[in-house]
Amino acid sequence: MPASASPAPVTVVGLGDMGTALARAFLTAGHPVTVWNRSAAKADPLVAEGAVRAASPAAAVEASPLVVACVLDYPALREALGSAESRLDGRTLVNLTNGTPEEAQETGAWARGLGAAYIDGGIMAVPAMIGTPDAAVLYSGDASAFGRHEAALRVLGPASFLGPADGTAALNDIALLTGMYGLLGGFVHAAALIRSEGAADGSEGGSVTEFTENRLLPWLTAMTGILPALARQVDSGDFRTEGSGLAMQLRAYENFLSASRARGVRTDLIAPFHALMERALSAGAGPSDDVSALVDTLRDGRG
Amino acid sequence: MPASASPAPVTVVGLGDMGTALARAFLTAGHPVTVWNRSAAKADPLVAEGAVRAASPAAAVEASPLVVACVLDYPALREALGSAESRLDGRTLVNLTNGTPEEAQETGAWARGLGAAYIDGGIMAVPAMIGTPDAAVLYSGDASAFGRHEAALRVLGPASFLGPADGTAALNDIALLTGMYGLLGGFVHAAALIRSEGAADGSEGGSVTEFTENRLLPWLTAMTGILPALARQVDSGDFRTEGSGLAMQLRAYENFLSASRARGVRTDLIAPFHALMERALSAGAGPSDDVSALVDTLRDGRG
Ligand SMILES: NC(=O)c1ccc[n+]([C@@H]2O[C@H](COP(=O)([O-])OP(=O)(O)OC[C@H]3O[C@@H](n4cnc5c(N)ncnc54)[C@H](OP(=O)(O)O)[C@@H]3O)[C@@H](O)[C@H]2O)c1
Ligand SMILES: NC(=O)c1ccc[n+]([C@@H]2O[C@H](COP(=O)([O-])OP(=O)(O)OC[C@H]3O[C@@H](n4cnc5c(N)ncnc54)[C@H](OP(=O)(O)O)[C@@H]3O)[C@@H](O)[C@H]2O)c1
Repeated sequence: MPASASPAPVTVVGLGDMGTALARAFLTAGHPVTVWNRSAAKADPLVAEGAVRAASPAAAVEASPLVVACVLDYPALREALGSAESRLDGRTLVNLTNGTPEEAQETGAWARGLGAAYIDGGIMAVPAMIGTPDAAVLYSGDASAFGRHEAALRVLGPASFLGPADGTAALNDIALLTGMYGLLGGFVHAAALIRSEGAADGSEGGSVTEFTENRLLPWLTAMTGILPALARQVDSGDFRTEGSGLAMQLRAYENFLSASRARGVRTDLIAPFHALMERALSAGAGPSDDVSALVDTLRDGRG
Repeated sequence: MPASASPAPVTVVGLGDMGTALARAFLTAGHPVTVWNRSAAKADPLVAEGAVRAASPAAAVEASPLVVACVLDYPALREALGSAESRLDGRTLVNLTNGTPEEAQETGAWARGLGAAYIDGGIMAVPAMIGTPDAAVLYSGDASAFGRHEAALRVLGPASFLGPADGTAALNDIALLTGMYGLLGGFVHAAALIRSEGAADGSEGGSVTEFTENRLLPWLTAMTGILPALARQVDSGDFRTEGSGLAMQLRAYENFLSASRARGVRTDLIAPFHALMERALSAGAGPSDDVSALVDTLRDGRG
């Protein structure tokens, strides 16, 4: 895009926490922005900041060549855009609603059937990060439409185009989010243990903030660094570790279960990993293999 | 310790992967090292590097004022040191075996009953990291014994003394490790999803290494950074989030479950967090609360 080109018009459909952040980022970057939300009042602050309120989804889609949609889920997306089907011809629909790869494929086929170009996206950020270098967004689908609108999409945050399949961004988004929820689940359990400290004698629990800042954060930062080595083991099929085998890990894990039970902390979040280690060992993983061997065990659900 | 003091003698009991790394670090730092292991052959490489092999646990304990023990678990520790009970008087026992806070308390009482000073420790590192600045070790128990031996213990890695209770190091160790296994569980599930890509058509799965290096690592590094904010919510009891409420998260989480099932990836590791969110919402957490609210839900196991 030549430096002199003025920012292109953009429509944003869906003004929840995330859609509002997206529309605001486009406004801040100088794009003419048209917005629509089911509950019209959510557009008020954006209109005060210069956005144009569309009277209907159809009018919203008609207003811009680029339509960015971000609603709760795919049924909501199809409901929102149902009355705008006739206006999608020639438009590019960038769908940033969280969904499965299958939903992305179906929605891509639907959009193409109406003459639209389809790009599916996954936002790896919370609303407050939108418009900053921390808000990575993954895209896949129509590569040439992505090229045409890349400058506008980069307003939201660093953009990665992962390939032409509609479902690729959603699959990566879901994989990253399950990774994150693992991290969050670990935090929740650890915090419950720290809170339980001293609880037996009725005193206040330990400070989760002190624990997290001084110990958990540096520890998890260091441990995140070993993931590429585990990933190489997964890809190579050679799971042997130098010094932290499953047999030793399984034994230590029993201490996590019993120490949690002794403090009245439910083991719901941590018990499944223990069961998976046992399952892997009985399915043939070696006692000196690392947890990378569990990936195959998790995939034995395939029929 | 004056700079001119020569390194003090140290005994290491237990020469598995970790005990061997501990003994080697002391040797490298110039300490006279006496070692004992149930299977005597595991001492051979260390003896070749200058360690003295003790003929029995009693002889090992007698050899040094500082005895560092690192075996599989506490029953193994008591079995190993059972025949050395009469020699523990006046010694400092630093126990780096993984166990529960309760086990640490019992073992501390046992050691003090024999006239020994007791320090419990948790090693936050794999064997290859021992002796480097990355091998953080947590200690609690006898503060003055810790002060006397701190210089030697710092040979293993940065040392944090968490307080006088025998169980504090173990509780923190277990909390940090459950945090780590959350991270690892998230990685295992994410890797299984990536491997499943293309599997439906019989082709190779996606590269877990490429995914981990380019997307998962930066993403989890960024998300680790939000833990202190969640920790402050836990401590304050105010769980409200700006822009990522449980209601939205619960809906997106359903996509992780169905996308996993569609690929034959077992949901064992991810389903419990979903159930916990539902449990929290039905127990009174607000739809705009963040996952910090789950800590209390996990603690309702207490009687
Ligand atoms: N917030 C985050 O941290 C975050 C991060 C990454 C991705 N995401 C994804 O972004 C999407 C939006 O999230 P959010 O945080 O903005 O959620 P939100 O604040 O709950 O907003 C939901 C939006 O969906 C609309 N909607 C729901 N059902 C609808 C229907 N049947 N027809 C039309 N519109 C409907 C709502 O309209 P009303 O206002 O009329 O209810 C609202 O605009 C979700 O897929 C989420 O997974 C969110
Ligand atoms: N490796 C790690 O990454 C790591 C990290 C942090 C903490 N830790 C903790 O460090 C401790 C040792 O781990 P490791 O990796 O060294 O395990 P390991 O390689 O499996 O070694 C186990 C050690 O325990 C000894 N042992 C087992 N049962 C015994 C008994 N009944 N009597 C006497 N000795 C017995 C073994 O002796 P034999 O040689 O005779 O079998 C061996 O020396 C564990 O508590 C572990 O949780 C390990």
